[in-house]
Amino acid sequence: MRRSLERPGTPAGTRVMKRLDELATCTSELGALTRLYLTPEHSRAIVLVRGWMEEAGMSTEVDDAGTLVGHYPGHQPDAPVLILGSHIDTVRNAGRYDGNLGVVVAIEAVAALHAAGAVLDFAIEIAAFGDEEGVRFPVTLTGSRSLAGTFEPANLDAVDKAGISLRQALLDFGCNPDGVAHLGRDRSKTLAYVEVHIEQGPVLEAEDLPVGVVTAINGASRFKVEVEGKAGHAGTVPMGLRQDAGAAAAEMILAIESTAAASDDLVATVGNCELKPGAVNVIPGSAHFTIDIRSPDDSHRLAAIAGLTTRFEAIAARRNVKVALAKTYEEPAARCDPGLIREFAAALGGIGLPERLLSSGAGHDGLAMVSLCPIAMLFVRCRGGISHNPAEAVRTDDVGVAVDVLIGFLNRLPSSLSKLAA
Amino acid sequence: MRRSLERPGTPAGTRVMKRLDELATCTSELGALTRLYLTPEHSRAIVLVRGWMEEAGMSTEVDDAGTLVGHYPGHQPDAPVLILGSHIDTVRNAGRYDGNLGVVVAIEAVAALHAAGAVLDFAIEIAAFGDEEGVRFPVTLTGSRSLAGTFEPANLDAVDKAGISLRQALLDFGCNPDGVAHLGRDRSKTLAYVEVHIEQGPVLEAEDLPVGVVTAINGASRFKVEVEGKAGHAGTVPMGLRQDAGAAAAEMILAIESTAAASDDLVATVGNCELKPGAVNVIPGSAHFTIDIRSPDDSHRLAAIAGLTTRFEAIAARRNVKVALAKTYEEPAARCDPGLIREFAAALGGIGLPERLLSSGAGHDGLAMVSLCPIAMLFVRCRGGISHNPAEAVRTDDVGVAVDVLIGFLNRLPSSLSKLAA
Repeated sequence: MRRSLERPGTPAGTRVMKRLDELATCTSELGALTRLYLTPEHSRAIVLVRGWMEEAGMSTEVDDAGTLVGHYPGHQPDAPVLILGSHIDTVRNAGRYDGNLGVVVAIEAVAALHAAGAVLDFAIEIAAFGDEEGVRFPVTLTGSRSLAGTFEPANLDAVDKAGISLRQALLDFGCNPDGVAHLGRDRSKTLAYVEVHIEQGPVLEAEDLPVGVVTAINGASRFKVEVEGKAGHAGTVPMGLRQDAGAAAAEMILAIESTAAASDDLVATVGNCELKPGAVNVIPGSAHFTIDIRSPDDSHRLAAIAGLTTRFEAIAARRNVKVALAKTYEEPAARCDPGLIREFAAALGGIGLPERLLSSGAGHDGLAMVSLCPIAMLFVRCRGGISHNPAEAVRTDDVGVAVDVLIGFLNRLPSSLSKLAA
Repeated sequence: MRRSLERPGTPAGTRVMKRLDELATCTSELGALTRLYLTPEHSRAIVLVRGWMEEAGMSTEVDDAGTLVGHYPGHQPDAPVLILGSHIDTVRNAGRYDGNLGVVVAIEAVAALHAAGAVLDFAIEIAAFGDEEGVRFPVTLTGSRSLAGTFEPANLDAVDKAGISLRQALLDFGCNPDGVAHLGRDRSKTLAYVEVHIEQGPVLEAEDLPVGVVTAINGASRFKVEVEGKAGHAGTVPMGLRQDAGAAAAEMILAIESTAAASDDLVATVGNCELKPGAVNVIPGSAHFTIDIRSPDDSHRLAAIAGLTTRFEAIAARRNVKVALAKTYEEPAARCDPGLIREFAAALGGIGLPERLLSSGAGHDGLAMVSLCPIAMLFVRCRGGISHNPAEAVRTDDVGVAVDVLIGFLNRLPSSLSKLAA
């Protein structure tokens, strides 16, 4: 049944890859891919994607947040809506798959429905969000937050490096800034948000799997940690009389690592560390380091932070130094819907693939959409786990599998929601 | 007998402290003490110290290296020479005791001999060296190396930040630059070099002792260590797939600390550490840190380095990262003479003090003088172990003890060398 929905001719993976190459030409930099929110290249990308959506039988519009939305109607005019999507903005000097892949794969799946003349009990929309990366303005998830009804109008005053406000940029893009706060969807009419995305990590590659089902977008906390010891002469202060802030920080860094390594669902990272005064012959008087800790389970993350805080205090007390943690960021986890996870897993099993579940370490539009409706995500293997980099790469075959799985997923949605035409 | 050598009136400690305050007025900066080699303030300091030397019965000269040398004759015109001394240059924004204390204490001891009419079987010279700190020119120990006969004439071409060469600065100071290489003393006529200096560390203070006898000036090695791992996304790379250069460096830093802590005579310090790229949400792809490791026993230092290298390689192999060490500095230890250590220890015992022996973590003119003759040093407690800082402080009583001990030491030198007058 499912296979009958595939389009004849060119394999789906090849077609998607070709479109992604074409989409990558919408850039502000020759020889690199940079496509920021509400820029001329964003506009050019919308023109391209809009054409593919319409070719797939969708009506389209650009909403007041600059999100391109394609609509594939269901049996009834007021049918509930399943939103597929991802984002078409990029970081600077980006890869061509982050975000864009999910939009083009969704179009390919709808095109298959359209080619088969399938009309579902629910409508499908594809949202091509314009501000997931948050690079141009000091705000992020503008498109998905507006659909979720959580957009803060104060964000319209955010300005980019050139001094242009989000409000002005929306106006210049042909949007009504005052409309953004009124884009919130009706919860009772919104079935789910489903996104296909590259993994941006090495798990699927390490296990030689083309795709995996996301259990949650990890919650994250970030801290700055300050250790205050006592600077001293590297030659004259015996080891037993030292209050070495650097050695204390090293012990804390290993405590962070071992705490995360001892858990199945934690990652923790010390990305930066500075010792002061920082001279070869001076015992560090102070050390500053950062912590980034993430988990799909908020209670695990919070318990790990509490445990680390206790360990830090013990380390500091034993070493006669002081330690202080300051939280700089916190975002709770966005859990994917168990029912939707089951359907995705079943779709994987249906084509003979292991039902690999994994959490998302990176953030996605689902972080905003989860306050509107159930969410689900499918990850696609990417080479070396590399992302936000021109070296970002996916396999054509894997993209084909992603299209298959997404179609299978749509096909498997409970019959009360999905009744495919012959 | 010894006490009879003390001068009447003002206690020695008070007199020395007063002179050090006066000497501290010879500075290039109002409100701070900065006295670099061959500067007008160096010249003013020589005038002051020269006056005190002559008052103590010494003839004086400034040699071609800018060292002020006072001469207190022995019984015979060709009597062998015991050199006392230290340095009268300072770091920038210095304390007033580092170096200067040793010169003024030596003058006080000779003044006591002179006041008692004592003439010894050996002559005493006091060398007030002008370049121990090595701040002005990229060379150091110029005065002591010239006496030791190890001055490199090529050093005359070294230039300061203003572009003035050492050669020119010596000429401007009234010295003959070409004479520096000919200042080397006759080994057969040089008995020893003996220096009093502040400890610049916290050991004596921690043990509530006014002075201690130095066993050696520690040898030192310095390294730059590079750890190369693989940068990655802090959210998406599971702990088991990481090649975290920062965590590897942290483990190495603790290995360095524990290696030194396990030994009685090692100190080791990681003064600087940098992680790259250094972002809160990126696993460090590389880490660079420094090592400074010192010991009075060169074989212990070298064995520790070999052991650490092996441990680093094991850590790197287990963590799938690479590590490379590059040596940036090496100076062997200068051992103090066992016989002179015994005499200093006996002089301590003679006034009821514990015979505390300790090594010197910092470098001193003895590093150069040891290639000429036996050396010995006496350390004086300093507050908080602080040095190279305006907060440098010593107790007047401790300075008095140092004068007593130095006189006792001179008094105790084997009778073949020392026969004090009635």
